[in-house]
Amino acid sequence: MKVTVAGVGAMGTRFALKLKQAGNDVTVVDGWDERVAALKQGGLRANLDGEEVAVDVPVYGQKEVPHDLHFDVVLFFTKSMQLEQMVKDMLPVFDDDTLALCLMNGIGHEKTLEKYLPKNRVFLGNTMWTAQMTRPDHVLLEDDGSCELRNVEPGEPQDRRAAELVKTLDEAGLKARLLDDPRYSVFRKGCVNGTLNTLCTLFECNLEEFGKTSRAHEMVVGVVKEFAAVGEKEGIHLDVDEAVKHVEDCYRVIGAHYPSMYQDLVKNKRRTEIDYINGYVARHGKKYGLATPLCDLLTAELHTKEELQNAQ
Amino acid sequence: MKVTVAGVGAMGTRFALKLKQAGNDVTVVDGWDERVAALKQGGLRANLDGEEVAVDVPVYGQKEVPHDLHFDVVLFFTKSMQLEQMVKDMLPVFDDDTLALCLMNGIGHEKTLEKYLPKNRVFLGNTMWTAQMTRPDHVLLEDDGSCELRNVEPGEPQDRRAAELVKTLDEAGLKARLLDDPRYSVFRKGCVNGTLNTLCTLFECNLEEFGKTSRAHEMVVGVVKEFAAVGEKEGIHLDVDEAVKHVEDCYRVIGAHYPSMYQDLVKNKRRTEIDYINGYVARHGKKYGLATPLCDLLTAELHTKEELQNAQ
Repeated sequence: MKVTVAGVGAMGTRFALKLKQAGNDVTVVDGWDERVAALKQGGLRANLDGEEVAVDVPVYGQKEVPHDLHFDVVLFFTKSMQLEQMVKDMLPVFDDDTLALCLMNGIGHEKTLEKYLPKNRVFLGNTMWTAQMTRPDHVLLEDDGSCELRNVEPGEPQDRRAAELVKTLDEAGLKARLLDDPRYSVFRKGCVNGTLNTLCTLFECNLEEFGKTSRAHEMVVGVVKEFAAVGEKEGIHLDVDEAVKHVEDCYRVIGAHYPSMYQDLVKNKRRTEIDYINGYVARHGKKYGLATPLCDLLTAELHTKEELQNAQ
Repeated sequence: MKVTVAGVGAMGTRFALKLKQAGNDVTVVDGWDERVAALKQGGLRANLDGEEVAVDVPVYGQKEVPHDLHFDVVLFFTKSMQLEQMVKDMLPVFDDDTLALCLMNGIGHEKTLEKYLPKNRVFLGNTMWTAQMTRPDHVLLEDDGSCELRNVEPGEPQDRRAAELVKTLDEAGLKARLLDDPRYSVFRKGCVNGTLNTLCTLFECNLEEFGKTSRAHEMVVGVVKEFAAVGEKEGIHLDVDEAVKHVEDCYRVIGAHYPSMYQDLVKNKRRTEIDYINGYVARHGKKYGLATPLCDLLTAELHTKEELQNAQ
């Protein structure tokens, strides 16, 4: 498959690397000059499950993508707040049959894609893989993971093409599966991010350390209930107990992991994606007349921490 | 006046020092062995408004106070969770006319005192002075401040004795004033502690730094509203706007100050008084059927931070 990964930070690098190693035709695009320079110089470099790898692929800065390129799929892996600009910058390479796939953290990204692309070419999902940028030219890829996706609008040919995307990702070792309802899955993953990413960033700890504290369960349940209440208003029925278990399974499965939000703010002094996670629930709760005091406070707390750290 | 200060951490030292310098007969008692040893060796040592001072006073460990001593007033300045044990240990020195005065942070301390002492001998209030323990043998006393108090039960002779206490404290330069309702005042001070102490500890910043962040006002208002709702159920009418202003005035008046809770947890890895501040509101809110989600979450967050720091 002819794939371009638009946004090759930590997670984008994992997907680009694995897809390339599996024989796909992979191009990468990024908006961070230092990252683009490093990729042009040394390729996709990573420690992949303990082994140092370096793979050459075509690299373009976000503003210099030639308009005559063609891809079967553009896989978006920017930070949430960079998605819209990346979509706009990638539009010239979209043909009538190019698919857009978004597996990023954050709720509501399909709306951003649907502003610029026909709904039947928008594919949505999430991933439980982890990834960590160690330097502008190097990524650490450890832990087990998976990903899941589907077209946001049922019908053909997009049902068939979703199955092809799953097959391609799965054959690349990315453990992909086809979803019934991608928005349900995004909300369920949002529960993981809205608890573990947010609180581990606030407390500057990893998942396992947080999971061992005596008030963790109470906080996770409280936040997940707010996600479920807002989801319900959007036609998504989250099973709170199941979603809480999904969150708490992470303590065991990826306990040593520091969430991407921690990496952004604590390690790299960059702004977080909080507005697309707890902030989404807070904003949409207000719209539906629902009280979401925990997501309100957590969103305010994370922004406060960003300001105190002069995050850019 | 014959005064013993029971608990001579940072704030107890300020009051003991100022009272002694004004000619009162001052004794001090503390439960921390290292502190007691330092006091016995070097007296009350402090940097008081830029000047190094050292004042000798009788010093007793909490368990070694001679039962035949007499005091006009026992001024309690322990950490909240140590108050009950200190009251019990001091009971033998209480005569029929010894007063108990508590100006500590935290809500509900009068209930602890009333468990052991007649209500007409319990005096309650708070202080806006700051103080900081720099070493076990040294305290830093800067900034301007004040204190206020009253007997918890109206009537004589306690009304008169409250006026005497105020006069003694005021003549010692502690800027004391007589309150109308001490529980109102404690709740109002609780709003300061439940916002600035809690959030500055969470974010590890001083008051001014917190006050400059764009979400500070929203968080302060939210928390103060919960204090007011619980206060209302206890017959205390807090004016939310006035209480918020009282909190936010601190950014200017004592902006460089790191709250005592920050000193406890971040600096000294000791457990905080959160259960007597936001935790009081959370617990009593539950009792009255009131939702206090912000105080619930802040209490859980502070306990989580204590656990992650192995606070003792």
